[in-house]
Amino acid sequence: MFTDIIARIPDLDEAAMQAARARQDMLTKPPGSLGRLEELTIQLAGISGESLPSVTNKVIITMAGDHGVVAEGVSAFPQEVTPQMVMNFLHGGAAINVLARYVGARITVVDMGVAADLPAHPLLVDKKIAPGTANMVNGPAMTRAQGEQAIQAGIEVLEAEIESVLDIVGTGDMGIGNTTPSAAIASILTGIEPARIAGRGTGVDDEGLKRKVDAIERALAINNPDPHDGLDVLAKVGGFEIGGLVGVILGAAAHRKPVMVDGFISTAAAMIAVSIAPGVRPYLISAHRSQEYGHNQMVTWLGLKPLVDFDLRLGEGTGAALGMFIAEAACRLLAEMATFDEAGVSDKDSQ
Amino acid sequence: MFTDIIARIPDLDEAAMQAARARQDMLTKPPGSLGRLEELTIQLAGISGESLPSVTNKVIITMAGDHGVVAEGVSAFPQEVTPQMVMNFLHGGAAINVLARYVGARITVVDMGVAADLPAHPLLVDKKIAPGTANMVNGPAMTRAQGEQAIQAGIEVLEAEIESVLDIVGTGDMGIGNTTPSAAIASILTGIEPARIAGRGTGVDDEGLKRKVDAIERALAINNPDPHDGLDVLAKVGGFEIGGLVGVILGAAAHRKPVMVDGFISTAAAMIAVSIAPGVRPYLISAHRSQEYGHNQMVTWLGLKPLVDFDLRLGEGTGAALGMFIAEAACRLLAEMATFDEAGVSDKDSQ
Repeated sequence: MFTDIIARIPDLDEAAMQAARARQDMLTKPPGSLGRLEELTIQLAGISGESLPSVTNKVIITMAGDHGVVAEGVSAFPQEVTPQMVMNFLHGGAAINVLARYVGARITVVDMGVAADLPAHPLLVDKKIAPGTANMVNGPAMTRAQGEQAIQAGIEVLEAEIESVLDIVGTGDMGIGNTTPSAAIASILTGIEPARIAGRGTGVDDEGLKRKVDAIERALAINNPDPHDGLDVLAKVGGFEIGGLVGVILGAAAHRKPVMVDGFISTAAAMIAVSIAPGVRPYLISAHRSQEYGHNQMVTWLGLKPLVDFDLRLGEGTGAALGMFIAEAACRLLAEMATFDEAGVSDKDSQ
Repeated sequence: MFTDIIARIPDLDEAAMQAARARQDMLTKPPGSLGRLEELTIQLAGISGESLPSVTNKVIITMAGDHGVVAEGVSAFPQEVTPQMVMNFLHGGAAINVLARYVGARITVVDMGVAADLPAHPLLVDKKIAPGTANMVNGPAMTRAQGEQAIQAGIEVLEAEIESVLDIVGTGDMGIGNTTPSAAIASILTGIEPARIAGRGTGVDDEGLKRKVDAIERALAINNPDPHDGLDVLAKVGGFEIGGLVGVILGAAAHRKPVMVDGFISTAAAMIAVSIAPGVRPYLISAHRSQEYGHNQMVTWLGLKPLVDFDLRLGEGTGAALGMFIAEAACRLLAEMATFDEAGVSDKDSQ
């Protein structure tokens, strides 16, 4: 089903990367002294094919869904918080709203499978697959067809944003219980046991964490997902918002757009996306190192190095918003700094 | 000489910190899920005495000076680059200009002791103590009176900025060779040998690094600075821009303003400031972990944890500009997020 879009994901543009690297060495600073910010501009040049990449038009896509596995007592918050937080996003009061406003990003909120009826709203995109997944401890969280449908919906959301104009996309999530499917995905793909991946999410106590690890172990045992089949993993232990984010990532790479990957849930989606289409990996930027226990092993599996580490564990796209700011700072440095020649500054070792 | 200003440095305001902490727990997110950003707002509340601190008015003070020790071949760039880069700052082409514009900070450039005549310019403050320090391998870099004069000048610059309006100050530096005095200061105050502190600065090769370590060792041997006397350390192995930054830091703390400390040189200035007045420590925020070798040991000595790590080694206040953005993001989250009550969201463990 996704053969077409996967086939359209290009390699990074080497000529653009070379041009960005050459310009970095001409700017009025010791070569390499902007460290990670220089690397970032080179990656963004390769992604966009532009020697002076720009990430002015920023979109954060925050996808929401509910999870049958909450019946196992895996979360510190009740399921009703998912639609309540969606309303908070629409009214502008959540952390992601504050940060998106501050960094100049627009946000699009997508109902991928919230277990409640949500009112129509100009900022809300309705792509509801079902009112929450099934409880994965009893069988697959969703059918394979629903997994495909979720990914396809994510591609459509991304392509609609490109129609509006988009230089960089940030991923975000909302879904009570969704660190549980994310930890399950990470456990399957890394081969690391659930107890060494699952964390406290929104803040479960020791008993809650035990229930969570137990639920993941039971889900893996009953579903036996194939670690070499990303769609199988998504369907058996994933979530609708996670599937939607997989589609966002695939679509972005196919359209040469960089993806600022948020925390634990978004990173699980990125792992599924890379499983399905390894060519998306160079399009990914890990915004931050999540405080959630297994996140470090997930970014290691992806071969990514998070930009910042603020001990965040909120999701919504909050880390992605901060990462977008850093990406834009890096692009502006490349575009706006004077060269040694322009500024009449002596170059290194010219004494 | 600085007894008055030191006596004016207050403890952080516990009531404001308590109020900020209480509000963080009422906002629509799991308690603590904004990690470091929550801690930052509590520190900023304590510094300002405001339960909803604001860092809207941002100033980066970039101080420039030259160093007699460059005669020992310790830098990869010629000394003429110091005034050339000052002109680049004034014309808006340097990295700090790009980042300051982007984060909405104004910059003030101060000639603390550049070894060249600089033209008058509205953005340039003339506080020149002398045209460069003496070569510290032959004796003190400056007299004790000059050290006091440099600190006093920094206090005056900071107080002039407060007159204009200032919520947060970022420190910045420019001075070919100034990682050498900074490493010397760090070595004296931490007691760690120069070879384990000094790094490659703007990019010296192995031979240059050897000359640098050797110069620091000779400077320490001939000057025998007293590690318990910050002013003695500054005078014997410091620099005029470093002394100026010490004054900026002391002045900021006396006026309850947070200091976003840039990289290696600014951190050396912060160490001198803390030596002179231990009460400034809670006013400091370390913006970033510099790539320069000894920086980690310096922030450890100060008891600070840098906000980000981008392998920067540029100075100018570039890391401080990025840090100010993060501080403002944190303040906006505290001020603008909805509470659970306001948004009608169920709180933790309410199921």
